[in-house]
Amino acid sequence: MEMSFRWYGHDDPVTLKNIRQIPGMKGIVTAVYDIPVGQPWPLERIEKLKADVEAEGLHISVIESVPVHEDIKLGKPTRDKYIAAYKETLVNLGKAGIPVVCYNFMPVFDWTRSQLDYELPDGSTALIFKQEDIDRMDPISGELSLPGWDSSYTKEGLTTLFEEYKEVDEEKLWENLEYFIKAIMPTAEAAGVKMAIHPDDPPYSIFGLPRIITGGEALNRFIKLYDSEYNGVTLCVGSFASDPKNDAVAILKDMLAKKRVNFVHARNVKLTGGKSFEESAHLSEMGSIDMYEVVKACVDYDFQGAIRPDHGRMIWGETGRPGYGLYDRALGATYLNGLYEACVKAKKAAEAKA
Amino acid sequence: MEMSFRWYGHDDPVTLKNIRQIPGMKGIVTAVYDIPVGQPWPLERIEKLKADVEAEGLHISVIESVPVHEDIKLGKPTRDKYIAAYKETLVNLGKAGIPVVCYNFMPVFDWTRSQLDYELPDGSTALIFKQEDIDRMDPISGELSLPGWDSSYTKEGLTTLFEEYKEVDEEKLWENLEYFIKAIMPTAEAAGVKMAIHPDDPPYSIFGLPRIITGGEALNRFIKLYDSEYNGVTLCVGSFASDPKNDAVAILKDMLAKKRVNFVHARNVKLTGGKSFEESAHLSEMGSIDMYEVVKACVDYDFQGAIRPDHGRMIWGETGRPGYGLYDRALGATYLNGLYEACVKAKKAAEAKA
Repeated sequence: MEMSFRWYGHDDPVTLKNIRQIPGMKGIVTAVYDIPVGQPWPLERIEKLKADVEAEGLHISVIESVPVHEDIKLGKPTRDKYIAAYKETLVNLGKAGIPVVCYNFMPVFDWTRSQLDYELPDGSTALIFKQEDIDRMDPISGELSLPGWDSSYTKEGLTTLFEEYKEVDEEKLWENLEYFIKAIMPTAEAAGVKMAIHPDDPPYSIFGLPRIITGGEALNRFIKLYDSEYNGVTLCVGSFASDPKNDAVAILKDMLAKKRVNFVHARNVKLTGGKSFEESAHLSEMGSIDMYEVVKACVDYDFQGAIRPDHGRMIWGETGRPGYGLYDRALGATYLNGLYEACVKAKKAAEAKA
Repeated sequence: MEMSFRWYGHDDPVTLKNIRQIPGMKGIVTAVYDIPVGQPWPLERIEKLKADVEAEGLHISVIESVPVHEDIKLGKPTRDKYIAAYKETLVNLGKAGIPVVCYNFMPVFDWTRSQLDYELPDGSTALIFKQEDIDRMDPISGELSLPGWDSSYTKEGLTTLFEEYKEVDEEKLWENLEYFIKAIMPTAEAAGVKMAIHPDDPPYSIFGLPRIITGGEALNRFIKLYDSEYNGVTLCVGSFASDPKNDAVAILKDMLAKKRVNFVHARNVKLTGGKSFEESAHLSEMGSIDMYEVVKACVDYDFQGAIRPDHGRMIWGETGRPGYGLYDRALGATYLNGLYEACVKAKKAAEAKA
């Protein structure tokens, strides 16, 4: 298991120098952010990104994400063009020695929250999902007021997208995912790039849009689409645990046993009733996920990939990209370091005794 | 075991609000800082400090320190006056419900370092002790240039102190410590205040001054001075480990077994040859101490007292009191949280299995 940290490139107020000073930090999770979705990433841009990271004594563990063009998710005739571009990107990532790519297959919006700066009792702020607030929103009838997405689409663009998704139910979305997976996986395998699909966040339908990567059953269906360790998952425990019916640790163990975990997101969430939740600090006692069990499972199954702290609260007056400040994520990383070191050493002691 | 954090009062750039936002943080380690050494602390000042801490959702775990007047260490006739004041402070701390007091018995200087802002490869800075630099210093012959102490004494005051200590060898210092301990301990016991002597830092003679709380043998001699759990130690693993001949974890276990650990300082140090060392990040792999073994020992012996991260590096551009910035100490706290949670849960699982 390798500790890693998401970095949004040179525009990120969190610098590589900041990240490097976190004890035990080894890997960077990043992407080429300024190439429009659907266009291939040139090798020289990837090599430049890699060199920038390595100049600071770190290395790229995972590309998060290479986004999937909406036409692929919709299954439109244009998808083949975008799939060809995706494959070209994977080939270039392979040439640069990038081992893992994270992506998702969520229509229109990926993560969805009702508020990005909810104040907790200790004065920190967190991203939250309040079911009744989401239920009140109707992103196509009026002005969109979905935190984090307000400026991503024009009203017209959004209306068109929602219209198009009326024809795409969950089974159709599965078909489109299968088409995509079968098209890209031979290229990914040949390039030596492990793919890691991120679960839907939260893992159920929002605004009537289909969502399919929602729990353990879905993952088992997913991995059968293409039978290879290269066709794996980003086991985001926080996303799965956002649905009270999911046992995120059990899902993690199942996928570890099947060798399909290619990346771990170790976010914690605190369920607050119904489908509502707050993004808590990483510490087990602050949320609903037993982080010890998460890390212990990774150690027990000898997981060799990258793990990263996920969304953090905003603490100590920090401002910045919601969920992606430096401070609380760094506290999450060192907390995970502690769990990891203890689990590894306990395992070694038990093996020495046996 | 309770996680705690040192706070230097309202002048500290690190605020109680900052500390409270560290996940899992429960206790504050602080003192009344503006009363001259040797004068008793009025109850109302202690009550005010306690109320200030509790207003931020925290509580006082330990007073660090009630300093011991130099005349007590020197065994001067005036010591009885200062001991009476010390006892008055302990009575008042007991009335306020303060459970533990940390103190030390180091002549003239307590912690000694050769540089407070040594730059590490990742751009962070740390306190270091470089033996050859210390050997070159002669704090009485010329101007003192000892980092952290330059302005604490006048040249004349320091010369006088060094003159007085010429009469105090290690055995004499032990006698003076015994006199102090036998005088204060019945009061501390009656007040319900556990005493926790801090080891000498580093644990050997500096500038010809005697130092006696230097390792496991010394602690065993110390606890026999007064046979009570109230006469305990601050097990500062970083201080003990600064002398390569000490096994800090073994010393910790010995004192835990004898129920004399009343407070734990979990600093890490990286030995760099001879008696030189750097104060590293807390993470085991960054220093010479196995922090997993430290925390596991506390859990195995069911230690119920406070632990705190100790000196941190300066990272992320922070400036402030050397060793006592917010960021790296907070990273230390959450790392210790991780070790602690894993050790507790592994112990419970083993007990359930047995």
